[in-house]
Amino acid sequence: MTTATSPRELAHPARDEIRLEGVLHALSDPMRLCVVRELAAAGSEVACSYIELPVTKSTTTHHFRVLRESGVIRQTYRGTAKMNGIRRADLDALFPGLLDAVLSAAESQAARLDTA
Amino acid sequence: MTTATSPRELAHPARDEIRLEGVLHALSDPMRLCVVRELAAAGSEVACSYIELPVTKSTTTHHFRVLRESGVIRQTYRGTAKMNGIRRADLDALFPGLLDAVLSAAESQAARLDTA
Repeated sequence: MTTATSPRELAHPARDEIRLEGVLHALSDPMRLCVVRELAAAGSEVACSYIELPVTKSTTTHHFRVLRESGVIRQTYRGTAKMNGIRRADLDALFPGLLDAVLSAAESQAARLDTA
Repeated sequence: MTTATSPRELAHPARDEIRLEGVLHALSDPMRLCVVRELAAAGSEVACSYIELPVTKSTTTHHFRVLRESGVIRQTYRGTAKMNGIRRADLDALFPGLLDAVLSAAESQAARLDTA
Protein backbone atom coordinates (compact mmCIF):
# COMPACT_ATOMS: atom_id res chain seq x y z
CA MET A 1 0.00 0.00 0.00
CA THR A 2 1.36 3.43 -0.89
CA THR A 3 0.61 6.66 0.86
CA ALA A 4 -1.11 9.52 -0.88
CA THR A 5 1.72 11.83 -0.01
CA SER A 6 4.54 11.62 -2.51
CA PRO A 7 8.05 11.24 -1.11
CA ARG A 8 9.39 13.57 -3.81
CA GLU A 9 11.42 16.33 -2.28
CA LEU A 10 12.42 19.57 -3.96
CA ALA A 11 15.84 21.10 -3.33
CA HIS A 12 15.92 24.05 -0.94
CA PRO A 13 18.86 26.03 0.42
CA ALA A 14 19.38 25.63 4.17
CA ARG A 15 18.90 28.83 6.15
CA ASP A 16 22.63 29.58 6.24
CA GLU A 17 22.90 29.07 2.49
CA ILE A 18 20.39 31.82 1.72
CA ARG A 19 22.08 34.92 0.27
CA LEU A 20 20.76 38.47 0.31
CA GLU A 21 21.69 39.00 -3.35
CA GLY A 22 19.70 35.93 -4.37
CA VAL A 23 16.67 37.02 -2.36
CA LEU A 24 16.77 40.53 -3.85
CA HIS A 25 17.14 39.07 -7.35
CA ALA A 26 14.18 36.75 -6.77
CA LEU A 27 12.07 39.69 -5.61
CA SER A 28 13.16 41.99 -8.45
CA ASP A 29 10.78 40.45 -10.99
CA PRO A 30 7.20 41.81 -11.13
CA MET A 31 5.64 38.33 -11.45
CA ARG A 32 7.67 36.88 -8.59
CA LEU A 33 6.93 39.91 -6.43
CA CYS A 34 3.26 39.32 -7.19
CA VAL A 35 3.55 35.67 -6.09
CA VAL A 36 5.23 36.68 -2.82
CA ARG A 37 2.56 39.28 -2.13
CA GLU A 38 -0.17 36.68 -2.68
CA LEU A 39 1.57 34.14 -0.45
CA ALA A 40 2.04 36.76 2.25
CA ALA A 41 -1.61 37.76 2.00
CA ALA A 42 -2.72 34.12 2.16
CA GLY A 43 -0.68 33.67 5.33
CA SER A 44 -0.44 29.92 4.89
CA GLU A 45 0.66 27.38 2.29
CA VAL A 46 -1.19 27.61 -0.98
CA ALA A 47 -1.20 25.52 -4.12
CA CYS A 48 0.50 26.87 -7.26
CA SER A 49 -2.88 26.73 -8.98
CA TYR A 50 -4.19 29.24 -6.41
CA ILE A 51 -1.98 31.94 -7.87
CA GLU A 52 -2.77 32.95 -11.42
CA LEU A 53 -0.12 34.80 -13.37
CA PRO A 54 -0.58 36.24 -16.87
CA VAL A 55 2.20 34.03 -18.22
CA THR A 56 2.54 30.47 -19.50
CA LYS A 57 2.60 27.52 -17.13
CA SER A 58 6.30 26.88 -17.80
CA THR A 59 7.15 30.50 -17.04
CA THR A 60 5.13 30.28 -13.85
CA THR A 61 7.04 27.13 -12.87
CA HIS A 62 10.30 28.94 -13.58
CA HIS A 63 9.34 31.85 -11.32
CA PHE A 64 8.39 29.51 -8.47
CA ARG A 65 11.68 27.68 -8.89
CA VAL A 66 13.70 30.92 -8.66
CA LEU A 67 11.80 31.81 -5.48
CA ARG A 68 12.46 28.35 -4.04
CA GLU A 69 16.14 28.16 -5.00
CA SER A 70 16.84 31.62 -3.55
CA GLY A 71 15.23 30.60 -0.25
CA VAL A 72 12.22 32.92 -0.44
CA ILE A 73 9.60 30.17 -0.54
CA ARG A 74 9.33 26.52 0.45
CA GLN A 75 7.64 24.15 -1.98
CA THR A 76 6.27 20.84 -0.73
CA TYR A 77 4.35 18.13 -2.49
CA ARG A 78 1.12 17.17 -0.74
CA GLY A 79 -0.39 14.38 -2.78
CA THR A 80 -0.70 15.76 -6.29
CA ALA A 81 -0.53 19.42 -5.26
CA LYS A 82 2.65 21.45 -4.96
CA MET A 83 2.16 23.73 -1.98
CA ASN A 84 4.01 27.01 -1.49
CA GLY A 85 4.76 29.09 1.56
CA ILE A 86 7.05 32.02 2.33
CA ARG A 87 10.07 31.09 4.48
CA ARG A 88 9.30 33.95 6.82
CA ALA A 89 11.07 32.55 9.87
CA ASP A 90 14.27 32.05 7.90
CA LEU A 91 14.11 35.41 6.13
CA ASP A 92 13.21 37.34 9.29
CA ALA A 93 16.05 35.66 11.19
CA LEU A 94 18.61 36.38 8.47
CA PHE A 95 17.42 39.78 7.29
CA PRO A 96 15.24 41.43 9.95
CA GLY A 97 12.67 43.79 8.51
CA LEU A 98 13.60 43.15 4.88
CA LEU A 99 10.60 41.09 3.80
CA ASP A 100 8.15 43.43 5.48
CA ALA A 101 9.84 46.47 3.94
CA VAL A 102 9.62 44.90 0.48
CA LEU A 103 5.98 43.84 0.92
CA SER A 104 5.04 47.25 2.21
CA ALA A 105 6.93 48.96 -0.63
CA ALA A 106 5.20 46.72 -3.18
CA GLU A 107 1.82 47.52 -1.72
CA SER A 108 2.34 51.26 -1.71
CA GLN A 109 3.76 51.19 -5.22
CA ALA A 110 0.77 49.18 -6.48
CA ALA A 111 -1.59 51.71 -4.89
CA ARG A 112 0.44 54.58 -6.34
CA LEU A 113 0.41 53.13 -9.84
CA ASP A 114 -3.21 52.05 -9.45
CA THR A 115 -2.45 48.55 -10.69
CA ALA A 116 -3.28 46.79 -7.47
CA MET B 1 34.92 82.25 -20.38
CA THR B 2 33.75 78.81 -19.43
CA THR B 3 33.12 77.53 -15.97
CA ALA B 4 35.06 74.65 -14.52
CA THR B 5 31.86 72.76 -13.91
CA SER B 6 30.75 70.82 -16.94
CA PRO B 7 27.16 71.28 -18.03
CA ARG B 8 26.95 67.59 -18.91
CA GLU B 9 23.96 66.02 -17.23
CA LEU B 10 23.36 62.34 -16.78
CA ALA B 11 19.85 60.90 -17.10
CA HIS B 12 18.08 60.07 -13.86
CA PRO B 13 14.55 58.84 -13.23
CA ALA B 14 12.35 61.34 -11.40
CA ARG B 15 11.20 60.17 -7.99
CA ASP B 16 7.84 58.97 -9.28
CA GLU B 17 9.53 57.02 -12.06
CA ILE B 18 11.54 54.89 -9.64
CA ARG B 19 10.26 51.32 -9.47
CA LEU B 20 10.70 48.85 -6.63
CA GLU B 21 11.59 46.04 -9.05
CA GLY B 22 14.36 48.15 -10.59
CA VAL B 23 15.75 49.09 -7.19
CA LEU B 24 15.75 45.46 -6.02
CA HIS B 25 17.41 44.37 -9.26
CA ALA B 26 20.08 47.06 -8.89
CA LEU B 27 20.77 45.90 -5.33
CA SER B 28 20.81 42.19 -6.22
CA ASP B 29 24.37 42.25 -7.58
CA PRO B 30 27.24 41.80 -5.09
CA MET B 31 29.37 44.56 -6.67
CA ARG B 32 26.50 47.05 -6.76
CA LEU B 33 25.52 46.18 -3.20
CA CYS B 34 29.13 46.83 -2.25
CA VAL B 35 29.02 50.26 -3.93
CA VAL B 36 25.81 51.18 -2.11
CA ARG B 37 27.27 50.10 1.23
CA GLU B 38 30.35 52.25 0.62
CA LEU B 39 28.24 55.26 -0.39
CA ALA B 40 26.04 54.81 2.68
CA ALA B 41 29.09 54.58 4.91
CA ALA B 42 30.62 57.68 3.30
CA GLY B 43 27.42 59.59 4.02
CA SER B 44 28.11 62.15 1.31
CA GLU B 45 28.91 62.33 -2.39
CA VAL B 46 32.04 60.48 -3.38
CA ALA B 47 33.96 60.17 -6.62
CA CYS B 48 33.81 56.90 -8.57
CA SER B 49 37.56 56.57 -8.07
CA TYR B 50 36.97 56.46 -4.30
CA ILE B 51 35.30 53.09 -4.65
CA GLU B 52 37.52 50.29 -5.84
CA LEU B 53 35.87 47.17 -7.21
CA PRO B 54 37.71 44.00 -8.27
CA VAL B 55 36.38 44.36 -11.83
CA THR B 56 37.37 46.27 -14.97
CA LYS B 57 36.71 49.97 -15.34
CA SER B 58 34.01 49.38 -17.94
CA THR B 59 32.23 46.89 -15.67
CA THR B 60 32.44 49.39 -12.83
CA THR B 61 30.92 52.06 -15.08
CA HIS B 62 28.15 49.62 -16.00
CA HIS B 63 27.33 48.95 -12.34
CA PHE B 64 27.18 52.66 -11.54
CA ARG B 65 24.91 53.21 -14.53
CA VAL B 66 22.49 50.47 -13.38
CA LEU B 67 22.40 52.09 -9.94
CA ARG B 68 21.75 55.51 -11.48
CA GLU B 69 19.12 54.39 -13.97
CA SER B 70 17.19 52.49 -11.31
CA GLY B 71 17.14 55.59 -9.09
CA VAL B 72 19.37 54.24 -6.32
CA ILE B 73 22.16 56.78 -6.79
CA ARG B 74 22.58 60.24 -8.28
CA GLN B 75 25.64 60.91 -10.41
CA THR B 76 26.79 64.45 -10.98
CA TYR B 77 29.79 65.83 -12.82
CA ARG B 78 31.86 68.24 -10.76
CA GLY B 79 34.64 69.42 -13.01
CA THR B 80 36.36 66.27 -14.20
CA ALA B 81 35.06 64.06 -11.39
CA LYS B 82 31.85 62.07 -11.49
CA MET B 83 30.38 62.23 -8.00
CA ASN B 84 27.96 59.66 -6.59
CA GLY B 85 25.46 59.79 -3.78
CA ILE B 86 22.60 57.57 -2.63
CA ARG B 87 19.14 59.05 -3.33
CA ARG B 88 18.13 58.40 0.24
CA ALA B 89 15.40 61.03 0.43
CA ASP B 90 13.71 59.63 -2.67
CA LEU B 91 14.10 55.99 -1.63
CA ASP B 92 12.96 56.60 1.95
CA ALA B 93 9.92 58.53 0.72
CA LEU B 94 8.92 55.84 -1.78
CA PHE B 95 9.90 52.72 0.15
CA PRO B 96 10.17 53.49 3.88
CA GLY B 97 12.62 51.25 5.68
CA LEU B 98 13.71 49.36 2.58
CA LEU B 99 17.18 50.83 2.09
CA ASP B 100 18.01 50.52 5.78
CA ALA B 101 16.76 46.93 5.86
CA VAL B 102 18.93 46.06 2.84
CA LEU B 103 22.02 47.81 4.24
CA SER B 104 21.57 46.15 7.60
CA ALA B 105 21.01 42.75 5.95
CA ALA B 106 24.14 43.24 3.82
CA GLU B 107 26.18 44.14 6.87
CA SER B 108 25.05 41.17 8.92
CA GLN B 109 25.56 38.82 5.99
CA ALA B 110 29.08 40.13 5.44
CA ALA B 111 29.85 39.61 9.13
CA ARG B 112 28.30 36.13 9.00
CA LEU B 113 30.31 35.12 5.94
CA ASP B 114 33.39 36.87 7.27
CA THR B 115 33.96 38.63 3.98
CA ALA B 116 33.45 42.14 5.27
